[in-house]
Amino acid sequence: MAEVLKIAVAGLGTVGAGVVSLLQKNGDLIAQRCGRHVTVTAVSARDKAKDRGCDLTGMTWFDDAVTMAREADCDLFVEQIGGSEGIAKEACEAALSSGKHVVTANKALLAVHGTALARLAEENGVSLNYEAAVAGGIPIIKAMREGLAGNRINSVQGILNGTCNYILTTMRETGRAYADVLAEAQALGYAEADPSFDVDGVDAAHKLAILAALAFGREVDFDGVHIEGISRIAAVDIQYAEELGFRVKLLGMAEAHDDGVMQRVHPVLVKGDAPIAAVEGVFNGVVMEGDAVGTSVLEGRGAGAGPTASAVVGDIMDIAAGRFVPVFGVPVSALQPAASLSMDRRFGAYYVRLRVIDKPGVIAGVTAALRDEKVSMESIIQRGRDPNEPVDVVLTLHETTEAAMNRALQRIMDLDAVIEPPHMIRIER
Amino acid sequence: MAEVLKIAVAGLGTVGAGVVSLLQKNGDLIAQRCGRHVTVTAVSARDKAKDRGCDLTGMTWFDDAVTMAREADCDLFVEQIGGSEGIAKEACEAALSSGKHVVTANKALLAVHGTALARLAEENGVSLNYEAAVAGGIPIIKAMREGLAGNRINSVQGILNGTCNYILTTMRETGRAYADVLAEAQALGYAEADPSFDVDGVDAAHKLAILAALAFGREVDFDGVHIEGISRIAAVDIQYAEELGFRVKLLGMAEAHDDGVMQRVHPVLVKGDAPIAAVEGVFNGVVMEGDAVGTSVLEGRGAGAGPTASAVVGDIMDIAAGRFVPVFGVPVSALQPAASLSMDRRFGAYYVRLRVIDKPGVIAGVTAALRDEKVSMESIIQRGRDPNEPVDVVLTLHETTEAAMNRALQRIMDLDAVIEPPHMIRIER
Repeated sequence: MAEVLKIAVAGLGTVGAGVVSLLQKNGDLIAQRCGRHVTVTAVSARDKAKDRGCDLTGMTWFDDAVTMAREADCDLFVEQIGGSEGIAKEACEAALSSGKHVVTANKALLAVHGTALARLAEENGVSLNYEAAVAGGIPIIKAMREGLAGNRINSVQGILNGTCNYILTTMRETGRAYADVLAEAQALGYAEADPSFDVDGVDAAHKLAILAALAFGREVDFDGVHIEGISRIAAVDIQYAEELGFRVKLLGMAEAHDDGVMQRVHPVLVKGDAPIAAVEGVFNGVVMEGDAVGTSVLEGRGAGAGPTASAVVGDIMDIAAGRFVPVFGVPVSALQPAASLSMDRRFGAYYVRLRVIDKPGVIAGVTAALRDEKVSMESIIQRGRDPNEPVDVVLTLHETTEAAMNRALQRIMDLDAVIEPPHMIRIER
Repeated sequence: MAEVLKIAVAGLGTVGAGVVSLLQKNGDLIAQRCGRHVTVTAVSARDKAKDRGCDLTGMTWFDDAVTMAREADCDLFVEQIGGSEGIAKEACEAALSSGKHVVTANKALLAVHGTALARLAEENGVSLNYEAAVAGGIPIIKAMREGLAGNRINSVQGILNGTCNYILTTMRETGRAYADVLAEAQALGYAEADPSFDVDGVDAAHKLAILAALAFGREVDFDGVHIEGISRIAAVDIQYAEELGFRVKLLGMAEAHDDGVMQRVHPVLVKGDAPIAAVEGVFNGVVMEGDAVGTSVLEGRGAGAGPTASAVVGDIMDIAAGRFVPVFGVPVSALQPAASLSMDRRFGAYYVRLRVIDKPGVIAGVTAALRDEKVSMESIIQRGRDPNEPVDVVLTLHETTEAAMNRALQRIMDLDAVIEPPHMIRIER
């Protein structure tokens, strides 16, 4: 058997401790499967005294992760600190620069500094693996980077944030309001005290930028992702969607066009029988379209100590077994500069809910606004009748450009009878 | 860039020709992703004159695949001949023995001779990859053998045969009878002229035996798989199942027990909202349970030139890039001898449909038979009333052993009023 692979783990929160535990618990199996023993030789975290439920005997303690990355007697550095800047970034750079492989679950770091880190890994001849950064336990990075590598990927889309999916699923199942369900999710530990990273779509956008780089062989371009969150989704929109045969999901989507890649994260209506519609609760799911394979769907737990540790340990085992893959599937020099297309270029169908005063001529005004922007209606439904009081008007619109749709919505908003900004959700077929 | 990887392809049917085409079409991408060019240098098939829609210029033609495996100037042998014996087996053995890597889509060969072939590959220091053998384009072998390798797998189950799934889906959607839908599937090319390999569950069992070897680190044991096909499923069973909240699927299932592994392929009722229930038509889907990752689901096209070629080319690229994995995840010497448990050990719930003469005392007789074998009823429904004529009685039974269930069914069959052998389908929760 080959020499022991020595590992240093920085960050011993739920996930970091989960990695240490899994390496210990399934140690024999892991050694058998990758042909050598894997041992944690060093650890670092903020508080040495804290009980983390895993045995740290025999591991060298470092107060400072960067020092550990540089100086610890290890072959591989596991980063579980988090955040795109500061210690996480410095420690990963230090590890790569000193010829150590890096395994990380840090999507923010990769989304913002992925290309530079990939270059650093390449220069030092080491691996930078990050399966746990996207969709937790689902081996999606491996599927795209290796299993489906013979394909030209046309598009990738996914439910990439379990918190948002839990909130939307619960809203649909219970009919309750967003704020109410969010508060419950916080109480259950499914959402952070400050939930903005999740509910505003930033976390999903980090993951999408990584997937887009990998799918299309381009430099990571987080800034090029159009991002909208779920906080504007009303319970009533979810109900109308269901009546129309749709479910509301927060999707991350990346598609190749002739002149660039469109990357976007926003709520969408998907057909109720689409595979992605069946991904419910805290689960994540990713759908890829490859030119040879067609549609491929992967689904599983997107977060939590177990799934994340599973992904991190899988990455470690690849390195232990000497299996190497370029960070974004091709050498950094082959990555295309990122041309991210504007959201205005989006071409698709739309759902729009209007709050209007129920009086003669309202529908005529709305339909005229649409006609003037050449937006074609699929259906229009006025819910309830309540003369001179506010009622909902729900529209679905045939495929058009985002730009035309926005102009039409501006015209509609200018109508006297329309008393709230239109509630628009894009429809993905 | 490293030296060109030279490939010989044996068998140029739809899939073999698809592999050649994909290697040509995405050649630049493939070279970029695996760091070297991949070129087909030799081919073999039955009829040299046939037009296969792919360019064979510059490739050496062999009339005999075994000779090609032994003598062609190549590093890697792609086997697309099929069948567990004869030329396919001889050619793979010849290739491995002469130090050539082998990539195959041949599930029958691996299910029957997998352990011996793995040993031969190991002795010769070459790879034997077979992603395309199970679930076509879905990278399930890679997920289990690498991505989820840090997990102890508890169970794996899957819809592994697209023909059966297409038939069952269409029966449910249209209410039509099995024979009718099978004939249509044959006309559409979804089923073979002799469909027995598919509809009798043998094809799914080949795939399951491979998955079980991989999941549990055991020698392949195709003979240990309990196999039942779908030909006894009536349209009416599918309808009753749906009323009860279930779908009928042909599942392959393997579960680890303390004293062995249970491997079985048979029709089951699964809950309508289970992930596997959403895998419809010609799609395949696999659900794994790992101790760290929890539930993981992979879904995609299980057959066809494109998906199969995608899997074969992914396998080739791993070899081109120098990434090696033991055939069944661990060295052959570490594989456990296969202890396959008898189906009698199955413990679960059951659906039973009886054809009975509608007369007083029938239900009393049935329930007494169940009581005598300590089988506990969950529900009993008599469909229709038609004194002294045949009617359906549909039962669902709480969890019990297969052995007890069979004894109870024998007692029921012996009742005068019961005029057909009971139609039993196992329920999987």
